[in-house]
Amino acid sequence: MFRVTTWGESHGDSMGCVIDGCPAGLKMGPDIIREELDRDVPYPVLTRRVEENRFQILSGVFQGETIGTPISIIIRNSNVESDKYLKIMSRPRPGHADLAYRMKYGHVDWRGGSRASGRTWAPIIAAGGVARSLCSIRNVRVGSSIVELGGRPITDSNLRSEIERLAETSAKEEDATGGIIEVRIEGLPPGLGAPAFNRFHADLGHGILSIPGIKSFELGSSREAAKMKATEFNDPIRVKNGIVAPASNRAGGVLGGITCGPPVVFRAIVKPTPSVLSFQDTVDLTKMENATISTEGRFDANYTPRVLVVAEAVSAIVTVDHLMISGILDHDSLVPRQERLRYDFKT
Amino acid sequence: MFRVTTWGESHGDSMGCVIDGCPAGLKMGPDIIREELDRDVPYPVLTRRVEENRFQILSGVFQGETIGTPISIIIRNSNVESDKYLKIMSRPRPGHADLAYRMKYGHVDWRGGSRASGRTWAPIIAAGGVARSLCSIRNVRVGSSIVELGGRPITDSNLRSEIERLAETSAKEEDATGGIIEVRIEGLPPGLGAPAFNRFHADLGHGILSIPGIKSFELGSSREAAKMKATEFNDPIRVKNGIVAPASNRAGGVLGGITCGPPVVFRAIVKPTPSVLSFQDTVDLTKMENATISTEGRFDANYTPRVLVVAEAVSAIVTVDHLMISGILDHDSLVPRQERLRYDFKT
Amino acid sequence: MFRVTTWGESHGDSMGCVIDGCPAGLKMGPDIIREELDRDVPYPVLTRRVEENRFQILSGVFQGETIGTPISIIIRNSNVESDKYLKIMSRPRPGHADLAYRMKYGHVDWRGGSRASGRTWAPIIAAGGVARSLCSIRNVRVGSSIVELGGRPITDSNLRSEIERLAETSAKEEDATGGIIEVRIEGLPPGLGAPAFNRFHADLGHGILSIPGIKSFELGSSREAAKMKATEFNDPIRVKNGIVAPASNRAGGVLGGITCGPPVVFRAIVKPTPSVLSFQDTVDLTKMENATISTEGRFDANYTPRVLVVAEAVSAIVTVDHLMISGILDHDSLVPRQERLRYDFKT
Amino acid sequence: MFRVTTWGESHGDSMGCVIDGCPAGLKMGPDIIREELDRDVPYPVLTRRVEENRFQILSGVFQGETIGTPISIIIRNSNVESDKYLKIMSRPRPGHADLAYRMKYGHVDWRGGSRASGRTWAPIIAAGGVARSLCSIRNVRVGSSIVELGGRPITDSNLRSEIERLAETSAKEEDATGGIIEVRIEGLPPGLGAPAFNRFHADLGHGILSIPGIKSFELGSSREAAKMKATEFNDPIRVKNGIVAPASNRAGGVLGGITCGPPVVFRAIVKPTPSVLSFQDTVDLTKMENATISTEGRFDANYTPRVLVVAEAVSAIVTVDHLMISGILDHDSLVPRQERLRYDFKT
Repeated sequence: MFRVTTWGESHGDSMGCVIDGCPAGLKMGPDIIREELDRDVPYPVLTRRVEENRFQILSGVFQGETIGTPISIIIRNSNVESDKYLKIMSRPRPGHADLAYRMKYGHVDWRGGSRASGRTWAPIIAAGGVARSLCSIRNVRVGSSIVELGGRPITDSNLRSEIERLAETSAKEEDATGGIIEVRIEGLPPGLGAPAFNRFHADLGHGILSIPGIKSFELGSSREAAKMKATEFNDPIRVKNGIVAPASNRAGGVLGGITCGPPVVFRAIVKPTPSVLSFQDTVDLTKMENATISTEGRFDANYTPRVLVVAEAVSAIVTVDHLMISGILDHDSLVPRQERLRYDFKT
Repeated sequence: MFRVTTWGESHGDSMGCVIDGCPAGLKMGPDIIREELDRDVPYPVLTRRVEENRFQILSGVFQGETIGTPISIIIRNSNVESDKYLKIMSRPRPGHADLAYRMKYGHVDWRGGSRASGRTWAPIIAAGGVARSLCSIRNVRVGSSIVELGGRPITDSNLRSEIERLAETSAKEEDATGGIIEVRIEGLPPGLGAPAFNRFHADLGHGILSIPGIKSFELGSSREAAKMKATEFNDPIRVKNGIVAPASNRAGGVLGGITCGPPVVFRAIVKPTPSVLSFQDTVDLTKMENATISTEGRFDANYTPRVLVVAEAVSAIVTVDHLMISGILDHDSLVPRQERLRYDFKT
Repeated sequence: MFRVTTWGESHGDSMGCVIDGCPAGLKMGPDIIREELDRDVPYPVLTRRVEENRFQILSGVFQGETIGTPISIIIRNSNVESDKYLKIMSRPRPGHADLAYRMKYGHVDWRGGSRASGRTWAPIIAAGGVARSLCSIRNVRVGSSIVELGGRPITDSNLRSEIERLAETSAKEEDATGGIIEVRIEGLPPGLGAPAFNRFHADLGHGILSIPGIKSFELGSSREAAKMKATEFNDPIRVKNGIVAPASNRAGGVLGGITCGPPVVFRAIVKPTPSVLSFQDTVDLTKMENATISTEGRFDANYTPRVLVVAEAVSAIVTVDHLMISGILDHDSLVPRQERLRYDFKT
Repeated sequence: MFRVTTWGESHGDSMGCVIDGCPAGLKMGPDIIREELDRDVPYPVLTRRVEENRFQILSGVFQGETIGTPISIIIRNSNVESDKYLKIMSRPRPGHADLAYRMKYGHVDWRGGSRASGRTWAPIIAAGGVARSLCSIRNVRVGSSIVELGGRPITDSNLRSEIERLAETSAKEEDATGGIIEVRIEGLPPGLGAPAFNRFHADLGHGILSIPGIKSFELGSSREAAKMKATEFNDPIRVKNGIVAPASNRAGGVLGGITCGPPVVFRAIVKPTPSVLSFQDTVDLTKMENATISTEGRFDANYTPRVLVVAEAVSAIVTVDHLMISGILDHDSLVPRQERLRYDFKT
């Protein structure tokens, strides 16, 4: 119902997305998207490539409101240094998709990560801005936090110091690290999702596992679930002020794949950024012999913080899709049927 | 390309599936399905409901070979004791989908888990038999093992004793436990999957997270990834006998969402069976007041072993779909184009 | 949103469908389906195969109401005489799908039309019963009539006599004829459909062109459109009692692919039943030489009247899908959100 | 498998498409697209709006060959005169989608046809260039011709004179006319399509009926089918030089929805261009009272000739999709598996 198509390579002319299914009548200025894209690089100290993310809304919006047709957003790739890649084009970088792309496509764009680059998810961040606006119509909020960085637990108070420490040690060790993130979707109406193949958390997991660098999807207290007994793990059900709901949230907000009141909460593991200055073992494909590689491109010492905004965007997109499938959010939510013929002439 | 539609409730007349996209010319006797269904209850000591799983192939097969049309399989629900559920129908069982189903549907089949029951995945097990046959045409094999049960690590040698221990303690404690499983898909051709929204592991994760009781999907050594450095985690690439491939498999067989040679390996957490004899807190919906419940139905002390066969079936189905999308498996693999007109008359 | 999967061959054990997306709380007894299936053979004089269409609802309904899960319906193939086909199995029947099936599949079920038989659309007729019930919640009605039979125009008054005439001449001439049908969908809310690839009439056309024997889809007065001027063809727009609507309906109820008030009306050409007693030219595939064939199976002298009920069913199914996509029909239409928790306990 | 997403309004900044599923290794310069877009206005005498159709390929192509990732194409709307629409924005034009859009969306872009404009199909024409290149790999060719214009039959010899006559009379009468087109897809391998819901001609019909102004889809000699007897209409099957095929083509190239050798041929009715200078009846929505309208925008006296290139593009796109689904065209067709690792380094 709410579908995002993306296109673009990290070192091509531009990247973008087409959003199908957004109802008409949504207030939409560039700020909705600007705000999300500006969160793309939360800690510049961890990143060597900072883009200004110049974008344009090309269709689907007229006089500040969506018109129900596809919304096309384009983001320019302004800051492209692709020369560095020329000399390593025949050496697939370990941990990157280079080898897999050659195996699948044969002909590849060898400049940077191309289509596999995390950078190509900027259009998803932009689409996340639209999804977030739609979520807020039904008071659904998406938030996230870092749980672990480079093997060390993160809290609000040590976040900044840990990031500085990581930037330093990564530079010194010519290496990179990963982390764990947590996302919370709050305010979800009960009843989203379906019994078999459209379980809410499975659709969410599909989206999250599609993000470059993410290696796992863990719902609620799933890691504890493997060691707990049923009486410890099951969330008791209670009634309070006439509202029936689980009294705790080890399940992570879904039962049988269907939302039931509590926030949907999940964690995901982010692998270490594969690009490092240290020499790594690879193969030279022109000679078909073993070789080494040191990747000098621009990349992150740890991209866990940058994954947060992408994970939130994906969560918002999946949520809007389910809100629309369930009929909780539809075109009538924005422009009621009986007002439509004269909507444009209202004062 | 290879699509399985399922239907049926745990205490209804029957359950079944419709398999669309299976090429014509696949040898298919009932044994392909029988063999899989017989693995449904590997350790009867852990289960109180054992079905004989009587099934019938209703369409799509003629004279022992598929004919390319939808394959319909029906499984009878022979062993249905639904009376027990009558007295608890107004009390949603904690950890079950009961509450979520009422929130979503209003009118429910309150006998057993209905559509949310693990039992309704028997048709997927059956479809897995067909998928496995198709996999084997391209030498792809799916296997699995139990990694942890009730919080204790499992090896080949302690599996049986741990299961007996669990059966005993569960009965005594009137409680249930969970575990962790691992699935391996071997022999996969490189190049399956796509960059953005059809990453091989994301599609796999979607299927696996759809299985009742499964709470996580973790690719390769993902849990270690959060604590490792890039130089430790990245799999080196090497050439050997003219074959270029990763020399280790921490990535779990995919790079950038695309298979690249090594087996695809993942783990998944199975939560404790929610139904236990012990009293748990719930609500009586007729009176809208707090209440307790002790579930007397037939259920498992730990259903981790039963999840294995379902996880294998789902993995085989997702794999066949990707083999077909990539053109590696198609109708020509079974009945070459030039033989078709006279295929039925060959001697 | 409302999806029907079908399975079954004309001479197999049975046929059936799985309906996904039907909201919970729809009153549904077997009569809804019985009534439609009984319309399958409106004029037995034209048909040599009359089935009793024994069916069973296997899932998705509990205590006389749908529960929101897939509805599985099975129809037995009671009256199967397949021996006649044994002697013509190597001779593809002209006008039938026999040749195309061999070209595509190689291995085929050569008994009757197999999957290509109009008979395999009985499950769609059954699903149409469910769709019609859902349509009626929003006062949408689907009706149809015969416009032409064997080249002669049909009215209410000459229908029966023309059918008797056709039955007679077909028997005498050992030949068969076709016709033209018209379907009307009334009471449609405006706004169904979308600008580009989900135009209401394109989705409808897709469904209608999928029906065996149907060769065209013509919207509204489309045949006249080719010869008319814009000022003759355009429907004037008028306001009456505060309602703005087209004052005529040459467009057939949609503008730009979107419903706008008037009934959606279309015509479709039905080809002559291909099976006839007369000898026709074909090939013997075992010898790969020219041959002739006279088809002795059971078939219709003219199946135009039987196509009516299938075309209505398809129209109702497409309409329900669009009603649900547009949010005009959803689960809340049947069981309001606030009543769900206690819906089953109401008195 | 081969999917085209489009976006853009006729008077917005630009329009475009995203092509998913094009295999890597397809030679692709701008000429492939240029050539198709230049066919957009074959007879300028019939049209008042002539765009230069400036376009750019933004992604999916590197060093002159596709790389398997989404191909994004943008077309600028250079020639936009939208002032004329300001004064008629409250008066929906008869025969246009204006009224339907207001009923569906409420908030609309009232400049020109917006998303409903035939102009927004330029991106499909561009995508058709890519599809045509893919078709030619398998020797499939798509061609078309005008059968009737303004009610008069068209042949190669009278085409130009009839067009001039139409341009003249339309201007004089301040009116517009329609026509009938025929499309032929030649060289199709047998076996494309599927028995039930993916019949080749139904998918084709869906695409064709989605084109603005097209009112019907008629396969083969379908119009004659309604009046013929089976023995007249059925195509005899013959063997010649070891090839079994229908010896005539009244069926239009498909049997049971599956291609069987002969070209797929269909006709479609094009309605008269709705915009005319003559006054037509409509409603003023601000006052909710009857009114008249004379449309002064730039439009065609008869857009039948312009529909040809769109219908060809849609036919090529649907065909490529079916070639890929059937495994007849896949990535291996362009870059064989064993050459992929070193494909970029070949000399």
